Amino acid sequence: MDKRVLQDHVDDINNIIEGFLPVPDGYNSELAEAMRYSVNGGGKRLRPMFMQEVFRMFSEGREEPLILHAFMSAIEFIHTYSLIHDDLPAMDNDEYRRGQLTSHVKYGEAAAILAGDALLNHAFEIIFTCIEESEDPEDYMAGISAARVLSSKAGMSGMIGGQYIDVYSEKHPDFTVDKDVLNYIYRNKTSALIEAAFMAGAIIGGAADIEISVVEKMATYIGLAFQIQDDILDVEGDSSVLGKPVGSDEKNDRQTFVSLYGLEKAREAVRTYTDRALEIFDKLRHKNVFLRELIILLISREN
Amino acid sequence: MDKRVLQDHVDDINNIIEGFLPVPDGYNSELAEAMRYSVNGGGKRLRPMFMQEVFRMFSEGREEPLILHAFMSAIEFIHTYSLIHDDLPAMDNDEYRRGQLTSHVKYGEAAAILAGDALLNHAFEIIFTCIEESEDPEDYMAGISAARVLSSKAGMSGMIGGQYIDVYSEKHPDFTVDKDVLNYIYRNKTSALIEAAFMAGAIIGGAADIEISVVEKMATYIGLAFQIQDDILDVEGDSSVLGKPVGSDEKNDRQTFVSLYGLEKAREAVRTYTDRALEIFDKLRHKNVFLRELIILLISREN
Repeated sequence: MDKRVLQDHVDDINNIIEGFLPVPDGYNSELAEAMRYSVNGGGKRLRPMFMQEVFRMFSEGREEPLILHAFMSAIEFIHTYSLIHDDLPAMDNDEYRRGQLTSHVKYGEAAAILAGDALLNHAFEIIFTCIEESEDPEDYMAGISAARVLSSKAGMSGMIGGQYIDVYSEKHPDFTVDKDVLNYIYRNKTSALIEAAFMAGAIIGGAADIEISVVEKMATYIGLAFQIQDDILDVEGDSSVLGKPVGSDEKNDRQTFVSLYGLEKAREAVRTYTDRALEIFDKLRHKNVFLRELIILLISREN
Repeated sequence: MDKRVLQDHVDDINNIIEGFLPVPDGYNSELAEAMRYSVNGGGKRLRPMFMQEVFRMFSEGREEPLILHAFMSAIEFIHTYSLIHDDLPAMDNDEYRRGQLTSHVKYGEAAAILAGDALLNHAFEIIFTCIEESEDPEDYMAGISAARVLSSKAGMSGMIGGQYIDVYSEKHPDFTVDKDVLNYIYRNKTSALIEAAFMAGAIIGGAADIEISVVEKMATYIGLAFQIQDDILDVEGDSSVLGKPVGSDEKNDRQTFVSLYGLEKAREAVRTYTDRALEIFDKLRHKNVFLRELIILLISREN
């Protein structure tokens, strides 16, 4: 994929997100700044990009409604808050993320906790606001449905549930992370929010229920491939390209796909999961060439 | 007010909340337990009680819809998550709350951060679920409207915004907490969520827009009276009745209404704000004797 094409997509998404970010004002200034600092910390915008492309795939040229843009921003805010909290001293205790200081190093620990809380809350606030202001009844119904999916995938039966067991296993060395536990962690910590991105894009794009289930399945595989590639990069990546130190999993005594099965099997799993995702993708009635290339790009990425 | 009457109300609310709490199951067990532990930690259920009574005041005998119960639970989950995070070592570093160990002492700091995150997320998840499943279009519209209010009052322009400045002022001794700053903190940290309770009850109860604005104003005063009474109890309360040590504000170098103006002025302010709230209350077309007594009870409370 042409790097400029990808960057154009990222720039477009950054403009959309900017419209939903809080503006520093009065007593709120530092809190809003802390929220903006982490959101604008150089993320790949993968989740909003997936959501937008899935919407485009199903919507057949329909103009993008404001509610789509609210959800694209909301999922990036949720992803960002989870990283802020994940980096905290009580969790992974990371000082750098994407080449910049983590929130608690820059603003202090209390501020980072509250900035994360505020981002999660803000995500739902902009969704409620856009749903209420929506004038198209279809967007209204789709908004509620997509919001339910997003909150479920982000919560205790999704992302937070996966993070909890991930952290729990690090703090309890006697707790064995076997194949099943690792699968649970990856499916929830990483896949769940990617599933939400795909499903929300499909719902707002007007996909049928069966199509929503199919893209959910595809997203599960993409999430697994993405997370295992992450594990591989943590072992053999270049820290200057990654923007964070390599070897942090080992430092945190974290069991990963690589530590359980070795590098060779991990590379194989990335390929297998990607193939499974593409197999589903190619059977869909709708096509999106850019999205297909994006999925392939993920397995060869270096950060 | 008869203590048994009050306890009956609390029991009723506890039953409602129980229906929306997660059930420990599989890998989620400890996370669900940590969430339940804090929610069931002996709170006064003031916010859901306000919401329910305001609903009853406006709804004129209409049966309570499920959406009301979802919002009553959601506001208690939001209140609880804010306390879990507020008690963390990086924030107030409190070991006890309502006579039981705080979440991070019992489950560890990482678990407490995630349990708080999960409660905030869960609050919105149950709201979306109930809105989507609602069969009455009026409940549907009221649900969206109340959700927007709740997310706004709980977020960066409400509760979190107030907490941020409160924490900021503790960590920056050179930052002067004057009358305006203290007013900002109290209106956001404490009043905002009480306003949300009153407004959501009124919205779901079918109140007119002007009535929603009037109860918001009333709730602001009630929140201020409540917070200043809290400050007074922190100075002269009985720690065995409070369930937490007294003097924690002084320990945290926190400026309060009492430290700025003294005990006498503080007692006067509680009376003044309560009188203002009751003045508004007595002008309303609708009546609720229990709610009126509850407001008065707040100023004489000992915990």
